[in-house]
Amino acid sequence: MINTLIEYFEQHIELSDDEKLYLSKNIEVRKVPKNEMLLSEGKISKEFFFIFDGSIRLFYNKEGIEKTAFFYTEEMFVSSYESFTKQIPAKHSFQTIEDSIVAVFTFETAYDLLEKHPRFEFLARIMMEEELIIYQDILASFITLSAEERYIKLIESNSDFVQRVPQHQIATFLGVSPETLSRIRKRIASK
Amino acid sequence: MINTLIEYFEQHIELSDDEKLYLSKNIEVRKVPKNEMLLSEGKISKEFFFIFDGSIRLFYNKEGIEKTAFFYTEEMFVSSYESFTKQIPAKHSFQTIEDSIVAVFTFETAYDLLEKHPRFEFLARIMMEEELIIYQDILASFITLSAEERYIKLIESNSDFVQRVPQHQIATFLGVSPETLSRIRKRIASK
Repeated sequence: MINTLIEYFEQHIELSDDEKLYLSKNIEVRKVPKNEMLLSEGKISKEFFFIFDGSIRLFYNKEGIEKTAFFYTEEMFVSSYESFTKQIPAKHSFQTIEDSIVAVFTFETAYDLLEKHPRFEFLARIMMEEELIIYQDILASFITLSAEERYIKLIESNSDFVQRVPQHQIATFLGVSPETLSRIRKRIASK
Repeated sequence: MINTLIEYFEQHIELSDDEKLYLSKNIEVRKVPKNEMLLSEGKISKEFFFIFDGSIRLFYNKEGIEKTAFFYTEEMFVSSYESFTKQIPAKHSFQTIEDSIVAVFTFETAYDLLEKHPRFEFLARIMMEEELIIYQDILASFITLSAEERYIKLIESNSDFVQRVPQHQIATFLGVSPETLSRIRKRIASK
């Protein structure tokens, strides 16, 4: 499994044997069952993740109602940056949507890795750029697109995933009721 | 002016004389009048900025209506990451709100700086963490807070700035009409 992570990094720079060995020895590969909380709002984030297999949702709690803001799938990093870097309570939660397999970077491992292998500063920057692009994109979608347009975008970017995720979670992501989602799907199918 | 940028970086690591000299020689300090576009939607971002003085808004265009998503003020970096790093058209625009003074990092300077002074990889990561935290926060606000709650948050985080920015831009940021903003302000004042 860890090889998938090494290959991901090597899309950007070739890793030395030492660097690969460090990852193999220090990064835990964890199986996480469906619907498990990886971070709960109000708790301090101690770990971030790289998804080998499965999917994770990021959600907020608004007066008892869960609002899904983003779906992470294979080969994506999942991190609550503010909570992780400042060690303060998280404003959102992460939960697996399916049985998943993830790489786990603890706070200690992440900073030890950067200290012992400073070339990972470069990789950290690249990963963060990817993450920022995702956030700029989520924000743009929330501000400029309708629920139907956001659903079409989700299908276009990852149609396989849309089949795998429970429809009620897609509905909370779009900010509509399951009935409205059902109508949106019918309208798209008839086009 | 460039000293403010050096001091900002030195909150994280002490810079060498070479590094300081590089910044002084290569980073342009630019005066930008009020209401000037620093990046227009659809154009490729060639520069990012650090604000010495003044303020900049990030806005989207939704069917001809401008939707302000964020206000940047002094000592913040302003960048359209996806457009800048991938050299593709930007999805949003940046415009000065007031007469401003900014440091300008061109595409060429930014990558030359990272090549010649690799310790800036570390600073780039720190800056990007700050930026990610801002985005996670904007998103959380959009999803979990009402217009009135977002207005209160804006005042709490930067009351001086709220006095400086035109009220109609605050209204587009909150997603309400200027009349509704006026009612919100009266309601808060009477509390």
